[in-house]
Amino acid sequence: MIAQTPKTPYYAVIFTSILNDEIDKEEYSKTAIRMVELAKEQKGFLGVESAREEIGITVSYWKDLESIKKWKYQSEHTLAREKGRSEFYQSFKTRIVKVERDYDFFIL
Amino acid sequence: MIAQTPKTPYYAVIFTSILNDEIDKEEYSKTAIRMVELAKEQKGFLGVESAREEIGITVSYWKDLESIKKWKYQSEHTLAREKGRSEFYQSFKTRIVKVERDYDFFIL
Repeated sequence: MIAQTPKTPYYAVIFTSILNDEIDKEEYSKTAIRMVELAKEQKGFLGVESAREEIGITVSYWKDLESIKKWKYQSEHTLAREKGRSEFYQSFKTRIVKVERDYDFFIL
Repeated sequence: MIAQTPKTPYYAVIFTSILNDEIDKEEYSKTAIRMVELAKEQKGFLGVESAREEIGITVSYWKDLESIKKWKYQSEHTLAREKGRSEFYQSFKTRIVKVERDYDFFIL
């Protein structure tokens, strides 16, 4: 689903990653699904978009930088991030961005 | 590939889309590949990341807003964008963002 976000400005985290070759796919998938559920419960969460082919891209949208910071250090998320570094990911890049303008096109 | 971008700040376009059910996949694929090639030739282009499952996410990175504006109105890109609206996409959302901070993790 394309995230239905409010009027700009708002913030986002672009998380781009490459998985390790030999990981427990089921454990990874469970963790990824749980992190989306958990993010949705956080204050300031606005939406999330995700796709994976050669690389995975997950963009989560947030009301402000404070919400992003709190999410980063949320305890269960911190454990998952540690697992990400030690097991799941060969490499990743995280970008904190401010959404300045947006426009869309929907056929209803 | 995870885009190797310079020190922040820089800019990005997050393009999220859902394809129409009945499109000419080959034509779409050719157009998408050509647009990446063309973007790479533009002044201020820094990199691109892309993945598609239920939704497609393409993030292109740019030096500044001026480069993004020029890319938007580049003539061949404008034709492709029109085809996107009229043929390829059921819906899309475009977000212009400023990358304020980033960090990464690579196992070499």
